Formats: sequence, C-alpha cells, structure tokens
Amino acid sequence: MNEQLPYFYETEVEWTEARKGEMRSPDLPTMEVAAPPEFKGHEGLWTPEHLYVASVNLCFMTTFLAIAELSKLEFASFTCKANGKLEKIEGQGFKMTEVILYPKLAIRHSRDVDRANRILEKTEANCLISNSINTVVKLEPEITFENLKGSATA
Amino acid sequence: MNEQLPYFYETEVEWTEARKGEMRSPDLPTMEVAAPPEFKGHEGLWTPEHLYVASVNLCFMTTFLAIAELSKLEFASFTCKANGKLEKIEGQGFKMTEVILYPKLAIRHSRDVDRANRILEKTEANCLISNSINTVVKLEPEITFENLKGSATA
Repeated sequence: MNEQLPYFYETEVEWTEARKGEMRSPDLPTMEVAAPPEFKGHEGLWTPEHLYVASVNLCFMTTFLAIAELSKLEFASFTCKANGKLEKIEGQGFKMTEVILYPKLAIRHSRDVDRANRILEKTEANCLISNSINTVVKLEPEITFENLKGSATA
Repeated sequence: MNEQLPYFYETEVEWTEARKGEMRSPDLPTMEVAAPPEFKGHEGLWTPEHLYVASVNLCFMTTFLAIAELSKLEFASFTCKANGKLEKIEGQGFKMTEVILYPKLAIRHSRDVDRANRILEKTEANCLISNSINTVVKLEPEITFENLKGSATA
C-alpha cells in the first residue's frame, strides 16, 4: 500500500432524462445508469441494485486473489455468480436482505481441494464490502480440478 | 411494478489476469473491473469500493427522482457527488465507514427551497441501499434556483 489510511472513493452521478443518469469517477470509464424496470426505470443499464451486488461479488474476487497469492494456491480459473435478493420488510421498507455467492474455482492440484475450500471461506470472512453491510452473504462454492496440459499431475 | 417481490439481481465476475476481471449481468454492458491500486490492483478500472459508493450514490438519485415526481417538484438539473471512506477498525478489519452525499439540485421555483430540502432528506431516509448497509450516510445538499429561460418567475 502506497498511501496512508483512510482511503477515499469518489463517484458522481448526473441525471440525464427520465430515470437515467451518467455515473463518473475520476479516471474511470463513464457508465450509463438507471433505476431498474420494476421501479419505473429502464432495461439494459446498471442499476443501484446491480452495482450493490457487483460490489459484493467483486470484493469477493479481489479478496480471493489476495489470499490465494499469500497462500500460494495454484488455480486455472475463477468465476463467481452473485444473486442479490430485494425484499420489503415490515417496518423497514425495501432492503437487500441476502446475497448468495457461487464461486467456481478450478485448482491445479487435486490435493488442494480442502485448502481451497478453507481459502474461499476465509475470503468471505475478510471481504471489506461484506463487512460494511447488513445483507446476509452466503457462500455456495464449487471446486473443480484442471491440471496443466502435458504436465504431470501432483 | 410489474413483478412480484422479492426481486433478484444477478452479476457474474470472471478473473482475467493479475487483479483484474470482467463483470457481467444478463442484458447489461460488460465492465472491466479490478482491485484498486492501494490493494495491489490497477488504475482506471471500477473497483469494489467504487461500485459500492456508486450504488449508494445512484440509489440516492433514483429515489430522489421517484419522490420528486410524486411531490411534483419541478427541477432543472440534479447531480450528486459521493465520497466513501475506507478505514481499518480495531477488531473489525477494513470497513467502509462513511459515505457523504453532495447533491446539487437546481429547482425551477424559488418558493420550493424548503420543500426541496425536505425532499432530499426524505430521499436519504428512503434509499434502499442505505437501508441495507452499516456505513453511515451523510447528506450535504446544495440547492440552487434556475427558472425556465423566457418564462415568468413564480
């Protein structure tokens, strides 16, 4: 880390028309954004709800990459689906109550299955976005095995 | 609303190289994403921290648009900066502790200043993302007045 804590993250949204806008951040690509169709918004654009789920999902990936590197875990691929649930709660209004993460991790060595599972659990426990929210985050991991083509299996 | 609650929001992230990946969601534009530079990541890409701040920021805008429509508030423009603070908290690890929202709203009629302030406060209280997080959300509104060119001032 090359700066002192705390770190700051800035965005700016500008209303354009109807329930749409432009999301900007210094030096980042501009994104067209909107309310989702179920709240009188628009199809095909990133919404607050999608960005929220994306932040949990991406934090899980970046935390995994950091922990996997520290743990010297060799893997071939990593993808993660995340599904966020929005409910109306009596007395609280609308709330994102749950995000389920479905990481699919292909490890290089079959001996690492248990260790990979522990690393994914540790990842979830250390995600700074999960640590900042009231939403329950659940983990449904799938670990597969893919050795290097032509190389010996460990 | 044309569907039954709960609503679901799905994303998928795929690791590409280093601390980068692709963020997808059915029917939405794909985004290149990464860890931020201060966590061994990359400049110029959307990060978990930026997406998190963006979700709070955009939820504030879309909630404002809904409440302003219900309240028949006439306005010329709306932008909102949001600044999120990431800290390391003793015993809790990293956490997004605060997001400050700086909405700039240009209303059409000077008589609406007080009402516009109340609408912005109501917006913050009703934002479903703010309602889902532990992060403290603060509001620093700025209301200006811009009447229609050539029209009479109310």
